[in-house]
Amino acid sequence: MSAQSGQTGVARAVVQQCLHATLQVKPADSGSEAEWTEIERGMVIYVCFFKKATEDIIPKMVNSLLNMKLCEMENGKLVSVLDLPGNILIVPQATLGGKAKGRNMQYHSNIGKEEGIHLYSQFVSQCEKELTTSDKCLEMGVLVKHGTYGNRQVLKLDTNGPFTHLIEF
Amino acid sequence: MSAQSGQTGVARAVVQQCLHATLQVKPADSGSEAEWTEIERGMVIYVCFFKKATEDIIPKMVNSLLNMKLCEMENGKLVSVLDLPGNILIVPQATLGGKAKGRNMQYHSNIGKEEGIHLYSQFVSQCEKELTTSDKCLEMGVLVKHGTYGNRQVLKLDTNGPFTHLIEF
Repeated sequence: MSAQSGQTGVARAVVQQCLHATLQVKPADSGSEAEWTEIERGMVIYVCFFKKATEDIIPKMVNSLLNMKLCEMENGKLVSVLDLPGNILIVPQATLGGKAKGRNMQYHSNIGKEEGIHLYSQFVSQCEKELTTSDKCLEMGVLVKHGTYGNRQVLKLDTNGPFTHLIEF
Repeated sequence: MSAQSGQTGVARAVVQQCLHATLQVKPADSGSEAEWTEIERGMVIYVCFFKKATEDIIPKMVNSLLNMKLCEMENGKLVSVLDLPGNILIVPQATLGGKAKGRNMQYHSNIGKEEGIHLYSQFVSQCEKELTTSDKCLEMGVLVKHGTYGNRQVLKLDTNGPFTHLIEF
């Protein structure tokens, strides 16, 4: 087995459409129940950064992912999540950076924890900012929600066809 | 925007863990309700073939995807879906083959419909066969379920952390 991921970029995103998505943002512990966040119709963005990623890539990623025609309207027309307008759920997903090696996935190219948290946080805040520049998004009250970097991403997803896209940066 | 997917192989798979997944295999029409298939705990495999794919790649794909340690047990140990043992839901996902070009995804590298149906069917039947060679899978009665090539893949997914993996062949 020599399956290879063709990783040449500094970040990787997988995008899926959803009608409704629920993500655990804090696991249950002895003192409290698990906390969840959720979105209605929109887009789930799973994101992973590689070692060479820097802040420079964030505006390009956000611009691409939010403006690309990845969402299907009722009439079948493809529009961007900003034009839908749809909600956005951002899920940190380190496993996306793996490379198959024998029976295992290896994560040698993944970014370190501190830098990962920083870039993830920038990514989230720039997505939020981008939404506020869209009149349509403001009018419809769509939201950016996101998971907690480093946590297990317990997700429930209800789609009308996930239309899974891979986009590398 | 010049986001690029690093496609160099002949097939692409995205894998997610699930606790339960439901997929529409036939849409509703005037004469009948929609038909669905479902699996309990296991793995969802979204698969896409590129133009250069031939039957030769199928045994390698099936062997890799079913034997790689992509599933997490309760104790945190990673095992293959055959060793879990878990069910398998195969979802044809042409969008996975897209390449970002400006605001659109282009699908110039995707395989043609007839060849795609053939390879997808081979992939499904070889996954089914692989399960029957595993005593553990036979004993636990795990199943391979799959979507209908060319249909909209209406999916509902319940995970304990999707652990999204990208594997290229």
